[in-house]
Amino acid sequence: MYLINEDTICAPATVVGTGAITVLRVSGSAAFDIVDRVVSFRKGTVAEAKGYTMKFGTVYTEGGEVLDEVIVSVFRAPHSYTGENSVEISCHASRFIVEQLLMLLVKEGCRTAEPGEFTQRAFLNGKMDLAQAEAVADVIASGSAAAHRVAFNQMKGGFSSELKGMRDELLNLVSLMELELDFSEEEVEFADRTQLNSLLTEVIAHVGRLIDSFRLGNAIKNGVPVAIAGSTNAGKSTLLNALLGEERAIVSDVHGTTRDTIEEVLNIEGILFRFIDTAGIRETSEIVEQIGIERTFKKIKEAEIVLGMVDMSREGEAGIAEAEAQVRELVSKVDFDVQKLVILLNKADLMDEKEVNKNVNLVNNFVLSVDYKVDIIPISARTGSGLSELKKYLFDYQNALVGESDHTLVTNLRHVEALSSARESLLRVQSGLAAGIPTDLAAQDIRESLYYLGSIVGEISTDEVLGNIFRNFCIGK
Amino acid sequence: MYLINEDTICAPATVVGTGAITVLRVSGSAAFDIVDRVVSFRKGTVAEAKGYTMKFGTVYTEGGEVLDEVIVSVFRAPHSYTGENSVEISCHASRFIVEQLLMLLVKEGCRTAEPGEFTQRAFLNGKMDLAQAEAVADVIASGSAAAHRVAFNQMKGGFSSELKGMRDELLNLVSLMELELDFSEEEVEFADRTQLNSLLTEVIAHVGRLIDSFRLGNAIKNGVPVAIAGSTNAGKSTLLNALLGEERAIVSDVHGTTRDTIEEVLNIEGILFRFIDTAGIRETSEIVEQIGIERTFKKIKEAEIVLGMVDMSREGEAGIAEAEAQVRELVSKVDFDVQKLVILLNKADLMDEKEVNKNVNLVNNFVLSVDYKVDIIPISARTGSGLSELKKYLFDYQNALVGESDHTLVTNLRHVEALSSARESLLRVQSGLAAGIPTDLAAQDIRESLYYLGSIVGEISTDEVLGNIFRNFCIGK
Repeated sequence: MYLINEDTICAPATVVGTGAITVLRVSGSAAFDIVDRVVSFRKGTVAEAKGYTMKFGTVYTEGGEVLDEVIVSVFRAPHSYTGENSVEISCHASRFIVEQLLMLLVKEGCRTAEPGEFTQRAFLNGKMDLAQAEAVADVIASGSAAAHRVAFNQMKGGFSSELKGMRDELLNLVSLMELELDFSEEEVEFADRTQLNSLLTEVIAHVGRLIDSFRLGNAIKNGVPVAIAGSTNAGKSTLLNALLGEERAIVSDVHGTTRDTIEEVLNIEGILFRFIDTAGIRETSEIVEQIGIERTFKKIKEAEIVLGMVDMSREGEAGIAEAEAQVRELVSKVDFDVQKLVILLNKADLMDEKEVNKNVNLVNNFVLSVDYKVDIIPISARTGSGLSELKKYLFDYQNALVGESDHTLVTNLRHVEALSSARESLLRVQSGLAAGIPTDLAAQDIRESLYYLGSIVGEISTDEVLGNIFRNFCIGK
Repeated sequence: MYLINEDTICAPATVVGTGAITVLRVSGSAAFDIVDRVVSFRKGTVAEAKGYTMKFGTVYTEGGEVLDEVIVSVFRAPHSYTGENSVEISCHASRFIVEQLLMLLVKEGCRTAEPGEFTQRAFLNGKMDLAQAEAVADVIASGSAAAHRVAFNQMKGGFSSELKGMRDELLNLVSLMELELDFSEEEVEFADRTQLNSLLTEVIAHVGRLIDSFRLGNAIKNGVPVAIAGSTNAGKSTLLNALLGEERAIVSDVHGTTRDTIEEVLNIEGILFRFIDTAGIRETSEIVEQIGIERTFKKIKEAEIVLGMVDMSREGEAGIAEAEAQVRELVSKVDFDVQKLVILLNKADLMDEKEVNKNVNLVNNFVLSVDYKVDIIPISARTGSGLSELKKYLFDYQNALVGESDHTLVTNLRHVEALSSARESLLRVQSGLAAGIPTDLAAQDIRESLYYLGSIVGEISTDEVLGNIFRNFCIGK
């Protein structure tokens, strides 16, 4: 379906900028010869060097002047990242030197690498499957311990081996069914239908679990979306600023100050949270503010956790009635099956302990009708009191979710799509068998599900798919 | 004067950011043991590994999870950059991994390195002298072939060996003079006074040549300063934009649009030029513009080359009189002993060839009084005609200067200061000897010059000097 490139590629493997050294990667069949032509060694050549050894050498410009002194690291196929003969050249981290060195490599027959081409070669040479290759970029981008763990597990083949288990079972099954077809005149059943059905149920459940893990996997990878919602002037922007420890959002006493939604990522003990400050909810005739409020509803829908801010510092019947209205509005916007609502009783600094407790009880009453537990935390966004409790709450909540799932988390939309297609095929097999469709049609559907599952690890892939995947890599990876 | 640090340091050696790999450096007596505790290998240890070999290993977090798989490069003292036992660890280029890996190294006994500390250790361990160490930063920062050549020559010890030659001669001389003192009662002259004087003259001339080379050396390192000067609306900003190929300076028909001086660097065939767009010269009562014009005069003084722009598109006697006034103003501001004035006849696109030639002749007449050659180039900043001729002119002019100097160029202010002090001492010796001062006083002055020359390569240095030098290095170098 694709040709393994026979040419030799080169690119910087580290960020080019002012550091101590920059590393250039050269990989391909002619890597050793090209480097031997570009770098002069006191004795010996790269071609003769053992793998996993280094050589000190000098690079001359075409004019014969010394360009740099470099350390050359030799990796012999298949014991290299790409699986090909590879060389890493450490030079001084000067843009000029890097530019000239790349030019010399190209003059001697290298091609500059496309984004992700080294990893693509590693895939094509069987050093890793496609799901593993995709995880390389995730490992590099990981900004938290949790995201790193998920990506690293995928890179090391955890997800792939899980898929392999399912595929092996399905393959075994479909082989038996196809065997039946060969003996169709004798009406034998090599594949026990009851056993077949229970296996299908099991695999469908497994695939479903993987699909469902995407919500959590994605939250871990990109940060758990936490919407800060509530009526205008409840102190939402003050809370965001307090959490970040900086003046990110503009805060004022004017109702409707925040219009755009503001997102900021905070790493709480190794878990990324993506806080979304939203426009305050209120009836307004102002067009820009209306758009902001619509966006707020959308953001609340996308959130994993909704922090509903309620200002209970207003006293009297009217104050209570307003607070109740605010809580009910928030409750009506949350889908409790997949989202968590936490009510933050803000401006607690304006109340004494007795008042705070009274208000917590009040809100508890407002949310009694909800079938799920709504937690209530009194805070003061202004003074910062209650914020460490809030952070601990968020961490504990999310950590418990991560802890619960000791199995693989899917973090990639492409994988979810393939899994969904596989599930559809398998569901069709199951209902078909129940309805007594011919074995050959059922076998065809199983083959289809195998196709989708195989596409995740790249057993089946097209240049277009590969192009899409590796285009988003950085050059040199 | 300083203690060689016995502790082990670590830092990223490459820029940390989204690339394929990041390299961390570990150097010091415990480097091997620390890395052996942080990285697990399938077999063997770094401590047992040969120099110039690599090992593949796994790093675990304190919690026992896999953090990353890394390649470890082993350098055994003295065959390393610092001269100490050193290890380079290539990990995936994730900020999270780098952060965690550094933390593990520190937990096992490393200290994070100060800026330039690896190079400082290389100096302290005698891998390079101070002038060479300083050039390391220059090599990294070099933005052009010419700057790279000068810095690389210094890093490889070109300048140092030149200094050594002078110092050896002076040392020989002063030894003989001091020997005379031991035999002072016998009135012998081991050091022939005529020979001594001619040697002094020679060394003083050599030191003077090095001091003078700073103007060119500095221009090559930081870019040749080229001031674009002329009256308001002569088209100076248009020229800058045309040279850069972008809209850098605001251009308008309003006289006095440019107030701040704008500097931009352009690499013309391997030589950096620092173009300085200045405020137009005219009588003005506007305070901000006045300040701008004063700055213009200052910038003209600092320039190596002054591009004097004259608009000759205005016709008639008045036009000619004004052009003459403009040229005379420019001529009066240039120090022809060290600066080059080039008159750019702008708006040539508004004239035919005959008119252009007539104007060139006119300007030639205006500058006849100048003892130096003033070159005239007709251009059109607006259409771009004449710009490639201008670039070629600038390159040829500067290239000839570089070509003339086949000897070392000094690029460092600290070195110029030391050379100047050395010259003063030597001039004092020379005039003293002519005046018949006692040998011991002359010998003392020679010792003083040796002190200054020695300070350049770091034979004599203080922690303060070292601190100043390495503070400006990046971490990891």
